[in-house]
Amino acid sequence: MLTRLKKENFPFELVRPHVEKVEAAILEQARAFDPAVEGYVSYVAGSSGKRIRPALVALAAGATGGVHDDHLRLGMVLELIHIATLVHDDIMDGAELRRSAPTASARWGNALAVLLGDALFSHALELSTEFPNALTRKIARAANDVCTGEIIQTQRRYDLNLDKATYFKIIRMKTAALFAVAGELAAALNGCPEDIQARLHGYGDKLGTAYQIYDDVLDLVGDEETVGKTLGTDLEKGKLTLPVLNLLENATESQRSKLNRLLISQQPIEVSVLAGIADYQGSIDSAVQTACSILADARADLSVLPHGDSHAALEQVTRFLEARLRQCLR
Amino acid sequence: MLTRLKKENFPFELVRPHVEKVEAAILEQARAFDPAVEGYVSYVAGSSGKRIRPALVALAAGATGGVHDDHLRLGMVLELIHIATLVHDDIMDGAELRRSAPTASARWGNALAVLLGDALFSHALELSTEFPNALTRKIARAANDVCTGEIIQTQRRYDLNLDKATYFKIIRMKTAALFAVAGELAAALNGCPEDIQARLHGYGDKLGTAYQIYDDVLDLVGDEETVGKTLGTDLEKGKLTLPVLNLLENATESQRSKLNRLLISQQPIEVSVLAGIADYQGSIDSAVQTACSILADARADLSVLPHGDSHAALEQVTRFLEARLRQCLR
Repeated sequence: MLTRLKKENFPFELVRPHVEKVEAAILEQARAFDPAVEGYVSYVAGSSGKRIRPALVALAAGATGGVHDDHLRLGMVLELIHIATLVHDDIMDGAELRRSAPTASARWGNALAVLLGDALFSHALELSTEFPNALTRKIARAANDVCTGEIIQTQRRYDLNLDKATYFKIIRMKTAALFAVAGELAAALNGCPEDIQARLHGYGDKLGTAYQIYDDVLDLVGDEETVGKTLGTDLEKGKLTLPVLNLLENATESQRSKLNRLLISQQPIEVSVLAGIADYQGSIDSAVQTACSILADARADLSVLPHGDSHAALEQVTRFLEARLRQCLR
Repeated sequence: MLTRLKKENFPFELVRPHVEKVEAAILEQARAFDPAVEGYVSYVAGSSGKRIRPALVALAAGATGGVHDDHLRLGMVLELIHIATLVHDDIMDGAELRRSAPTASARWGNALAVLLGDALFSHALELSTEFPNALTRKIARAANDVCTGEIIQTQRRYDLNLDKATYFKIIRMKTAALFAVAGELAAALNGCPEDIQARLHGYGDKLGTAYQIYDDVLDLVGDEETVGKTLGTDLEKGKLTLPVLNLLENATESQRSKLNRLLISQQPIEVSVLAGIADYQGSIDSAVQTACSILADARADLSVLPHGDSHAALEQVTRFLEARLRQCLR
C-alpha cells in the first residue's frame, strides 16, 4: 500500500515548534497585504502543506549553530514562493482541487489566480530584502530556476526524445532549487564557511531531486485511494518521468512505436498498462534505485556537519524518503 | 483626431541615447536566461514599447546629478517588471494582439505565458539585488502594488458602487507605482536627500495617474482607426473608469438604472451611446480636467530641482500629456 507523503509522516518532530512559528508567521503575513487581497492570501497560505522548506531551513540551521529569527523568515519566504508557484501551477493544470479544497483558480477564476500568485511572489521577494543582498539574490535566482524548470518541462511535453540529462535539469530547477537554497542559506545566516554552505546546498539539491522522482514514480504506481489523487496525471499532461524515460531508453524500434501509441496517439492513456510494462521491464525499480542512490549522496554531503540531533534528523529525512521509495519496488 | 501615444511622440529626445542603451541591455538580458527560455524572452522584450519607465529614470537622473550605469540598470529592471505584467495582463484579458504582434499567450498558450511572466519577474528582482537593499525592497514593493492594484480592479469589475477613492487607489497602484519608483530611486542612486526623492516619487505618481486617466478616456472617445485598437474594451471587461464614475456620481435614480442597463445587463455594450451620454453630461471633460490638474501638481513637485535640460524635459512630458488630454475635450 503506497500512501502519499503527509505532513505528519515527515520526521520533522525536532523542529516542529519552529515550523509552527513559520506557519503562524505565514498567516500573519496575509495581513501585510491590502485588505482587499488578505482573504485570498489566507486562503491559499492556510491550506497547510507539508512545510518541507521551512522544516529544512530549521534543521540545517540547527545543525550549523542554531535556529534564529532570520531562519524563520527564510523559511517563510521560501514557503511563500512555493505557494505562489502552486497557485500558478493549478492554473496551468486546470486543477480543481488541492488538498481536498478548491484551488484559487477554480474558486475565483484564472485572472485572479495569476495576480494572486504574482502578489505572493513579489511579497516574498520584498520580505527577502531583509537579508544581505547576496542572499536576496540567491533566493530570486532560485525562484527564477523554479519558473525556468517549469517552462522547459512545458516545452518538452509529449517529446519522446527528451533525454535524461534534461529531465534531471528540469526537476532540479523546478523542485530541488528551493530545497537547495533552504540548506545553503540556513548555513549562510549562521555565518558558516562556504564549503559548509555548498554541502548543504548539495544536500537540498539531492533531496529535492529524489523527492521529485518519488512523486513521479507514485504518479505511475500509487494506489489511487491511498495516494488520494488521480494517477497518471503526469502522463496525461505529456510529462515524461524517469520510469518512462528508462523504458524508452531500452526500447527497440518497434517497442518505441508501441510506446508512442500508448503515450501520445491514444487518449485516454491506459496508465495501468503502461505501468505494467514499465514494471515488467524493471524501469520503475531502476528509477527507485536511482533516487535511493541520490539520497545516499545527499547523506554524504552531511558528513562535514558536527554530530547532533539536527544532523541526525537531516539524515533521517533521507532514510524516511528512501523507505517510501523502496515500498515502490515491485 | 485622437491618436494613441506613440514612442516617437513622447518628448524623450534628451535621453534617447540612454533609452537606447536600456533597450539593448533588455535584449541582452534575454541571453541571461536558460537557452530554452531565451527565445520567448527576446520575443516579448523585443516588441518594443514606449519605454516610458527607463526614460523617466534617465530624466530624473539627469535632473539630480547625472545618468550613471546604475540608472540604466534601474530602467531595465522596471521595464522588465512592466513587461512581465503585460504578459500576465494579456492572459487575463484573453488578448490576441499587442502592438500588432501575437501576444505570448496567443502564440504559446496560457501555461507558458504564466511561467514566462514569472521568469521575467524573478529575473528583474534578481537584477535589482545589485542595488542597496533598501532600493531592492522599494522595487519589490512597487511590483507588489502593481499586482494588488490589478487584483482590486478585477474584484470591482461591474461594480457600480465603485467609489472614486478606490478608482484612484487602483490606478495609482497598477500604473503609477512604477512611475513613482522610477523618479524616486533615480534620485536615491544619485545620493539625493529624502525630500528630493519624495518629490520625484510624487511627480511619477501623478504623471502615472494622469497617464492612466488619459488611457481610460481614450478607451471611450478615441477614433478606432487612429487609436489602433478596439474601443470600449475597459467597459466590455467591466472596468469602470473615471468618465463613467463621473457620470454615475451625477446620475438620478432613474438615470442610474439606465446606466446599469447600458453597462451591465446589455451585451455588447453600445460604447458610442455611452460615450455620447458621458460627453453630453460633461463627464469626459471633467475627467480630462482632473487629469490636467493632477499634471499641474506633478509640475509643482519639480520646483525643488535645479534648472536645466532634464528638469525642463520632465516638465515637457507633463505638457505633452496635457495637450493630448485636451484634444479629448469635446
